[in-house]
This record gives sequence, C-alpha cells and structure tokens, in this order.
Amino acid sequence: MTEASERHPRIVASLLDSSLDALLCSSSTEVLLLTGYWPVMSSSVAIHTAEGDIRLIVPEDEVELAEKTSWTKLIAYKPAGLDTLQSPLERLRAPLKQALAELGLEKATVGLQLGEGVQPSSYAVSYQFRSSLLELLKQLMPQGSFKPCDNLLESLKAIKTSGELAILEDACRVAAVAFARAETVIEAGLRETNVAAAVQSAFETAPAAQHFERSYGYFFCMSGPNSAKASAAFARTRDRKLETGDLVMIHGNTCADGYWTDITRTYTVGEPSGRQTEMRKAIMQARAAGFAAIRPGVSGCDVDHAVRSVMKEHGMGEAFKHATGHGVGFAAANPNGVPRIHPLSHDVLEAGMTFNVEPAAYFDGYGGVRHCDVVAVTEDGVKVLTQF
Amino acid sequence: MTEASERHPRIVASLLDSSLDALLCSSSTEVLLLTGYWPVMSSSVAIHTAEGDIRLIVPEDEVELAEKTSWTKLIAYKPAGLDTLQSPLERLRAPLKQALAELGLEKATVGLQLGEGVQPSSYAVSYQFRSSLLELLKQLMPQGSFKPCDNLLESLKAIKTSGELAILEDACRVAAVAFARAETVIEAGLRETNVAAAVQSAFETAPAAQHFERSYGYFFCMSGPNSAKASAAFARTRDRKLETGDLVMIHGNTCADGYWTDITRTYTVGEPSGRQTEMRKAIMQARAAGFAAIRPGVSGCDVDHAVRSVMKEHGMGEAFKHATGHGVGFAAANPNGVPRIHPLSHDVLEAGMTFNVEPAAYFDGYGGVRHCDVVAVTEDGVKVLTQF
Repeated sequence: MTEASERHPRIVASLLDSSLDALLCSSSTEVLLLTGYWPVMSSSVAIHTAEGDIRLIVPEDEVELAEKTSWTKLIAYKPAGLDTLQSPLERLRAPLKQALAELGLEKATVGLQLGEGVQPSSYAVSYQFRSSLLELLKQLMPQGSFKPCDNLLESLKAIKTSGELAILEDACRVAAVAFARAETVIEAGLRETNVAAAVQSAFETAPAAQHFERSYGYFFCMSGPNSAKASAAFARTRDRKLETGDLVMIHGNTCADGYWTDITRTYTVGEPSGRQTEMRKAIMQARAAGFAAIRPGVSGCDVDHAVRSVMKEHGMGEAFKHATGHGVGFAAANPNGVPRIHPLSHDVLEAGMTFNVEPAAYFDGYGGVRHCDVVAVTEDGVKVLTQF
Repeated sequence: MTEASERHPRIVASLLDSSLDALLCSSSTEVLLLTGYWPVMSSSVAIHTAEGDIRLIVPEDEVELAEKTSWTKLIAYKPAGLDTLQSPLERLRAPLKQALAELGLEKATVGLQLGEGVQPSSYAVSYQFRSSLLELLKQLMPQGSFKPCDNLLESLKAIKTSGELAILEDACRVAAVAFARAETVIEAGLRETNVAAAVQSAFETAPAAQHFERSYGYFFCMSGPNSAKASAAFARTRDRKLETGDLVMIHGNTCADGYWTDITRTYTVGEPSGRQTEMRKAIMQARAAGFAAIRPGVSGCDVDHAVRSVMKEHGMGEAFKHATGHGVGFAAANPNGVPRIHPLSHDVLEAGMTFNVEPAAYFDGYGGVRHCDVVAVTEDGVKVLTQF
C-alpha cells in the first residue's frame, strides 16, 4: 500500500519525540491508524516501533479483510474455537509474545491507550481488553515500562494523509446519495422512521460504496419540535408523523472502511415560512464566514468566533447551543477530537486536518435547522468534502 | 419500575457473596444491568452498593431517556459545553465525588470492570474511560480498594428477570417482521445489498417497535458461496447478485432498549435442490434435538452434543464449524457469555438463562445454511423466543 509511505514517518517521528520505543493499540480506530486495517471485532492488536517495524495481530476470520487493506505483516490468531474455551486474551498470549520478541521489545517503553476516548462502532458487538491487556503485557515484558499515549494518538489522528483524505472524500460522496434521496422522499404523512429507513436504504444500495470493503451508516430523521432536540450529543429517530410546514433534519454518520463522516441537512415539508427562511439564511451566512476563516495557523476559537458572530448578528446566538465543530475522520464525533472548533480552543489548524462545521439554531418546541459539513484544511484555505 | 424488584436482590446477594461493598460500572451494558437504563454515549456511571443503594450519573442530554427507563436516582452532569474544554472524565469528578459521599463509599472495596469483555454498539460512537476512571477513583477514594468484578457481572447477566425476558421476547417479535420481509423480497437478480436494505427497512419501520425508546438493528445478507463464509465471527453483506438456486442467509442482530437478539434464517432462490433439502433437514433435526436437551441442570456441553450428534449422523459434523450457542441478551454475541453451548462447556443451565441455538452447515465454495434461534430456559424445559 502507498498509504504507509505517508503515515509511517509521522508515527516514527511522534515516537521519537515522546521517547517511546513503540505504540501498542487494540482499539479498532487506532489499529487502523497504525496499520491501515480497521478491525471488525476489535480483538486485534497493532504494534508500531520507533524503528518503523509494525506487526498486526488479527483473528483468523479477519485475515482476508486485513490483507486487502493493511500495509503490514500479519500474525493470525484464533480467539475462539471448538477445541478451546480460553478467552480471546488468553489466546492472544502466544502471538503477542511472538510479536514482542520479533520486534525486540522485551525491555521497551511502550505507549498504551490508558486514558479516556471514543470509539466508533465497528460491528454490532466489539471486544474490549481493558486493563487485562496491560496485565498480560506486564507478564510478557517484566522489564518493560508502559506510558499513556492517548494525546499522541489524538495528534496523529488529527492530520490526515492524502490517502486518508481521498477515502474520506469518497465516504462523503456515498453519503451524498442518501441526502439526495432525503430531498425527494420527505412529505407530509410519513413518519420519521419511514424517512430514515428510505434514506438509510439509499445509502446501503449506493453503487458508489461498492469499492469499499465495509460501508456502514447511521441515518436519523428528526422533524418539527423533535428537530430542536438535535442539539443533544446524539440524534434519535422517533415515530412522529411529518406535517406540512415542519422542519425535517436528516443527520448521518457514515463510514468507509473506518473513515467517518458527520453530515446534517435540514429540509422543509412544503414551502419554508419566513422564520425558517431567516434561520436558514443565518446558518448559510455563518457557514460561509466559517469557511472564510479556515486556513493553516488559525485557532479553533477563531473559526468558532467567525461562525458564532454571524449567528449573533441574526439574533440567534443563544439558539446556537453547541460548538462549531470537532475533529472528524477516525470517528464521527469526538469531544477530544483535534481540532476542536470551540470558543475556548487554541488548537491550531494545520493542512490535512479534517473537522465538521455545523452552524445551527434550535428553538425548543418549534424546531431546529443545522447544516453540518465535513471540511479539510488545505495549504491556503479550506476544501469542503460535502459540497451538496 | 417493577423490574428493580427482581434484579435488585440478585445484585445485592452477589455483592455479599463476593465481599464487595459496591459495583461501579461505566460500560453501557452493565449500566443497564445495574440501573435499567442503557446509556447512548457510554459516558454514564452506575454504582450499586451491597446495601441496595444505587446512583446513576448520566449526561444531561440523556436524562429524559434515563428517567423513562431507570428505576434509580439520577445525578445529571454535563460532559461538555460552550463554557469548558474539560474532558468528560474531568467533568465527571464532581458528580462522582458526590455519589461516593452519598453512598458512604470512601473506604469501600469496589468491584470494577478491569477484565476483557464485549460491548454491543449503542450509537455511532461510544465513550470509553479506560484506566483513567480507576485513576480518578483512586484520587477520590484514597482509602478504597478495587477488585475486578467481570465474572460476577457475567453471572448476573446470564439469568434474566421476568421483565428482561419480556422485553427480549418483544425484541424478537420486532425482528420477525424483518425476516417475514426477507421471505418475500428474495429473488434472482437482486444484490445482497438490496436484500439487506429491504430487510433493514422493514425492521426500522415495524410498528411493533414503537413502544421502545430505541430500536436498533443490523441485518446482513450472504448469498451463494458467500453464505459459507458466515461461519466467521461476523457477518458481512457484499454486492453479489443473487442467482436461481442460491442459498441466501439473512442474519440479524437487533436490540430493544439494550436487549439484543441473534437470529439467522436461510432461504433459497427458487426451489431448493436435493443437497439443500438435506442440509436443511439435518439442521432442523439438530435444532429439535438441541431443544429437547434443554432444561435446568443440564450442561452446555450436553446441549452442544445433542445438536452436534445429529449433524454428524447426517455426515455434516465437519461442516458444523462453530459452537451451538452462547449467552444472548445483554449482547448479541459474547464469547464469555454464559451459558456457553460449546463441546467443552460445563456451564449449567438455570431457568431464566437465554442463549442462541445455531446449528449450521458450511461448505466452502458452495454455501451455508444456518438456523439461529434465541431461547430461554424455563423451569422444566425451553421456550423458543424466535418461533417463526
């Protein structure tokens, strides 16, 4: 894979900066970052050394997928089978020992994920080793030492390689199919569940998704007063019937082989009212002001300020209840995701960073409008990945 | 809620048995077990003492949902906001301190989830506190001590209360709508993605789901040779076109407010061939033999043996590549889920346990048939929750 050529030296440089001999990760997103493969069941382990050596331990059932997408050497293991009742961690002991020996890490200082963070959903269930992985490592590396590497991982995830940007852009292109469907399907009398299902279905059958190994998506429909509740940290489709004059918010979090989007569009059933037109106008102006502020060297708070000022000018400062954005790509939403586009954020934008810009206005009991795009910082400005 | 009346004393008894003063959990499934509420973003914390006192710390945005489903006292907190860039864990410090003080746990021995386990997906992203929660607790409880409680939690999750059984049965009823749709929609020329989307859509718009707060589902379609690959730990829909004579496997993992199903049915495009009829016959006989073996006091290996023997009699022993089943309910699939219906399992069945029974035959390059039901152990036998 060509991808490794860009990601590789960044990881090595981070390790040298942090005086770590290696990173060892088991959560799916960080395995993707280190190896190019996004595990299904989260029972994989990736090790990346400061010398640039990598090992990826994956369950047998995932070898076929891992071979297609990872740029590194695989060690297969069997987390379960008819001949054993050992747990996945017990089964991991031998391959992990082998990998540590091959990489000469017995006395190393290893960075581990010990702090808080988010994980995108990679399947209906996912595995978590929790503290038991650290305990196993202490047994296998009695002379090793272990340090948290959570901030280092957040920094690495913030700036995408050109390959990662390309797949994220592709993911947005697939999601666009769903929003095109939303535009035609919304009408009075349908329930939110019907609209969400139609949009979901358009996404799932989008021919553009066929060149991904795994294309997942979660779509939500929130109409009328329910659209005002979309200011919460999560979206939720209910069974409310759409009525003429309703605001109808469609929110989607989709993923292409581990790279996530965060997109919202708001529609109206029938002709928009004056109030709705005002909300939309404020939001589209705020969006444009935000885009104009984005370039390398600018702080997250500056972009938030650009967006928020326009909302305030339109008398909708209070109605814009959340931050302007957050890092997007290795997860759809992440409160620690760099760069945070937040009134207090001094995260400095760099080319290759990707985040969402989501100006919104929510009025309890009436409704909400949000327009959420995914953007990438370029050498001299911004590229909008959701240009629809 | 009446639910607490049954779950409550079991938790208290387990705590007393284990000489623990309290359980403290932050993963969504275990919060559900302890409080009746299934958190969306996994940033909640549940504490249950050996005296029967409970506290549930939930993010503000989830209070409305938590109030509807939890039987316990809530403490709301704000994991993020416009006025702060603190992390969710930092924001949790004050409410956690308050809860520990209210419960008099400053010097307590507290059970924590330190070992490996699975979590079902509760949203597009979910929060994980990892070791940082233990570090925070050590600061807040300098005289406290902390022990793993993972096995205790698995035992508690194994046996459902009557309320939990009722909702799991309801969840199966909603999933049935999707499988009824599968039966009518499957035809030559459609792609696996089309079939999966149609089935998913039927599930998402099922009127029977309307009395749940959250009804989620993942449906997969695997046809022809792809159906043989369903022996893996995970399912996957591809874009293959269905052909006359194909086996078509539909696999669903669905959830109703945190209670999960694990269901598979296999169809044929057109008339089944002699070979397909033989496969189906073996599997249905194996299923019946498994059901006949289920009652309190029987071991997991006995049920597996009953099923596997029939598959062997039909010359399909090798083709039945995985265990007969595993605990189902608090997750769709869990390798540690009690009872394990596995050749080596001495897990003893008790009334109220729920698991899947999934006899199957997979022939590489040809196809697979699997029939996966969810069942409950009753006082004198078995109740099949997926009677369709």
